[in-house]
Amino acid sequence: MKAKKSEDFSEWYSEVVQEAGLAGYAPIKGFVYLPPYGYELWELIRSHFDERFRKSNHRNAFLPILIPESLLRKEAEHFKGFTPEVFWVTTSGDDQLSERLAVRPTSETLFYATFGKSIKSWRELPVLVNFWNSALRAEIKSTKPFVRTSEFLWQEGHTLHATKEEADEEVMRMLNIYKAVIEEKLAIPVIAGYKSELEKFVGALYTTTLEAVMPDGKILQMATSHNLGQNFTIPFDVRYLGPDGQMHYAWSTSWGVSWRLIGAVIMVHGDDRGLVLPPEVAPIQVVVIPIFYSDAEKESVIEKCREIVLRLQNAGIRTHLDDRTDYTPGWKFNEWELKGVPVRVEIGPRDLSEGKVTLFRRDELKRARVDDRVLVDAVRELLSEVQKNLFRRARETLNSMVSEAKSMEEFTRILEIRGGFVKSTYCGSNDCELRIKDLTGATVRAIPFEREPLLSNCIACGKEGKVTAYFGRAY
Amino acid sequence: MKAKKSEDFSEWYSEVVQEAGLAGYAPIKGFVYLPPYGYELWELIRSHFDERFRKSNHRNAFLPILIPESLLRKEAEHFKGFTPEVFWVTTSGDDQLSERLAVRPTSETLFYATFGKSIKSWRELPVLVNFWNSALRAEIKSTKPFVRTSEFLWQEGHTLHATKEEADEEVMRMLNIYKAVIEEKLAIPVIAGYKSELEKFVGALYTTTLEAVMPDGKILQMATSHNLGQNFTIPFDVRYLGPDGQMHYAWSTSWGVSWRLIGAVIMVHGDDRGLVLPPEVAPIQVVVIPIFYSDAEKESVIEKCREIVLRLQNAGIRTHLDDRTDYTPGWKFNEWELKGVPVRVEIGPRDLSEGKVTLFRRDELKRARVDDRVLVDAVRELLSEVQKNLFRRARETLNSMVSEAKSMEEFTRILEIRGGFVKSTYCGSNDCELRIKDLTGATVRAIPFEREPLLSNCIACGKEGKVTAYFGRAY
Repeated sequence: MKAKKSEDFSEWYSEVVQEAGLAGYAPIKGFVYLPPYGYELWELIRSHFDERFRKSNHRNAFLPILIPESLLRKEAEHFKGFTPEVFWVTTSGDDQLSERLAVRPTSETLFYATFGKSIKSWRELPVLVNFWNSALRAEIKSTKPFVRTSEFLWQEGHTLHATKEEADEEVMRMLNIYKAVIEEKLAIPVIAGYKSELEKFVGALYTTTLEAVMPDGKILQMATSHNLGQNFTIPFDVRYLGPDGQMHYAWSTSWGVSWRLIGAVIMVHGDDRGLVLPPEVAPIQVVVIPIFYSDAEKESVIEKCREIVLRLQNAGIRTHLDDRTDYTPGWKFNEWELKGVPVRVEIGPRDLSEGKVTLFRRDELKRARVDDRVLVDAVRELLSEVQKNLFRRARETLNSMVSEAKSMEEFTRILEIRGGFVKSTYCGSNDCELRIKDLTGATVRAIPFEREPLLSNCIACGKEGKVTAYFGRAY
Repeated sequence: MKAKKSEDFSEWYSEVVQEAGLAGYAPIKGFVYLPPYGYELWELIRSHFDERFRKSNHRNAFLPILIPESLLRKEAEHFKGFTPEVFWVTTSGDDQLSERLAVRPTSETLFYATFGKSIKSWRELPVLVNFWNSALRAEIKSTKPFVRTSEFLWQEGHTLHATKEEADEEVMRMLNIYKAVIEEKLAIPVIAGYKSELEKFVGALYTTTLEAVMPDGKILQMATSHNLGQNFTIPFDVRYLGPDGQMHYAWSTSWGVSWRLIGAVIMVHGDDRGLVLPPEVAPIQVVVIPIFYSDAEKESVIEKCREIVLRLQNAGIRTHLDDRTDYTPGWKFNEWELKGVPVRVEIGPRDLSEGKVTLFRRDELKRARVDDRVLVDAVRELLSEVQKNLFRRARETLNSMVSEAKSMEEFTRILEIRGGFVKSTYCGSNDCELRIKDLTGATVRAIPFEREPLLSNCIACGKEGKVTAYFGRAY
């Protein structure tokens, strides 16, 4: 690692991403590829969500990647929102297509035209499905792996319900699942709330969101869950026969998280040595490194390492033995620290003769020796401690980066000094929200679910304050 | 089910696919979507392969879906092979792109331009990666879900090696993994061999293949594994520093299976009642159906069913309780038979009072009663027996559908009467292979790895016979 996190955050991020083997730049502007280490991190994050989706009766399914333009146009606002970013297929082989096909920017329209069309009666509701795929939205700004790319891995959940109330419940159910996984597995605390009218999903009745603060003071949107009302079911004619014998339009929701979460993990937990992974999502939780100074020592040390790896693996801990002979232990330490492996086990001749094992924790960069006989329990405990510690640290950072501002002057000063979330009161109008954005670059990130006390009059127009919201400059 | 398998195979297939909830037609010509039941079948098939890929040190990764035209053109033969089927992105938002982007027909070119570029020395070889994604190839013929669609789910493995021998070994290793999963999990016996020059993958040194016969006598290609030689590494300049201090071009392979395998499962095992799933890949292995005639019976029967479901689930058996009250048991029997669930458990008041349980096996449509106390073992055994029986039946079908032909006349007659594999000898020339295709519609499906005895002179030109191959009409 050359760049320092505190000195050049953006350069540091780019270096960690590439040097740790999380992502690389593809030979197409705006696109990245993932080597196995980065993809395995995504697979682990995916499995945590998937488990909770299944438990709440959601099922995975598949939709095509191409969407006819006429379908995308059916919900006018939705189309207008996405059209500047759509990649269009116009040719197949040598033939001009009679209708342009959008490479999936999101699948609402296809969902209603397929799953929506197949429901008949209230007995078939709710429909609760999820899609793990990639979506494409042309990014004109400079590429930032996991945060700003023209193709991104994500999941999109789509559901149909008989009533608005059931759709409301679904929206919150999924936001709570997102919050649980992000806080408990990724160790990143979030602020939850509604989006403003200007910031909501194009086509939604309302959008709920989880937002996190990054160390550079900018805000990253982590997850969104939308109540789409009947805005899609009416144009797509998704109706069901109710128990009352009448036809009704269904209510719908959609919700998603993307590989942005990987970007957040890198930014929030990383340090000058590189990545720091929360154990719950680390592809390798423990790396075991043999240390020896002579061939005589080598055999017994490596044998011991193998035994330890087996014990840890049998305990369900994702463990890797680095027995490469053409690298020194010091070189290996650096590499696995860069890759953010939470716990390192070092075994040398002295450890061996004393029946001890050396444990190194990545988060605090500290060593401790434990008795070999209690190794598995000690490692398990240490992993759990690292997980908790990362969340504790991130929670402290978040707390220190929430400020209150009662005037535009104060608002601007806070943003310039340290950024983060600024809690402020405004009149709730789009005009004032836009004015704040023009003046400061900050937008409404979240309006708390529980109405918060008003702090002042509207900081933009000076008229009566109506809404207290979390503002911030967003990625 | 309206269509009969033996009467209108094609109509029967289409009906099973849709009625069993495996796939539906999307509102774009040539594209299908998968409801959860179909996608879960794919997820299970995927997990069987994934487990074996990992055990043989392959790792999953991610490549973008768009490929610049210049990259696709780098290997000329490859480009020529795919270009008639490519979907081209030409526009992003309102902007005409300066270079067309292909929607991934396959990822060889991107793999070399990313993973290939990152290797430096022999120490980093082999590179063994796999991608689960979807590929697009415009299909002009009529859509057949899982068999002929413009977008298909698949995996593509890509590897780099120091020597041709290592690449040869990799090709066979992966073909053997494919064979094991297809025969042991999908219960479909296959014939293995090389592809002919005309049938090999565009850009490959040679292609190996697994082929299966369908009940209509047509042949379905199940899996392919290619040695690409240095055909890609030279144009893409993928070189490594050898232990000899010299730079060498790497050798490469690629290999893939797609959701065609689902098509094969439907065709090979299904019957007039619908789908018949091998237990190893069935999303639901056991469905439990309560049977009662009065409200008084209802409670105790349902309670017993719940207990049984728990016992089976705790034993790791994928079990579903159908306790819907607005459908009769007979209606449910039909539905779960259509969906191909391997074993059905029926519990009625008589079973309850006698401490018995009724088991129904989908493959043979037979009932048996077992003692409730041995239920879990009995179900486990029955699932294993169904799995074996499906393979046995398919093996018998395959055996009955391999013929030998020593003349073009005999060859043609066999194909017209029953199709299947026809073993014949030809001179090995492209001309004669093409002539056979023109006359009969049959192509070389596989040339056995172990040279087989010559059966005659070349059936096409009458000159000296050189190769005995499996011919057939392919999907």
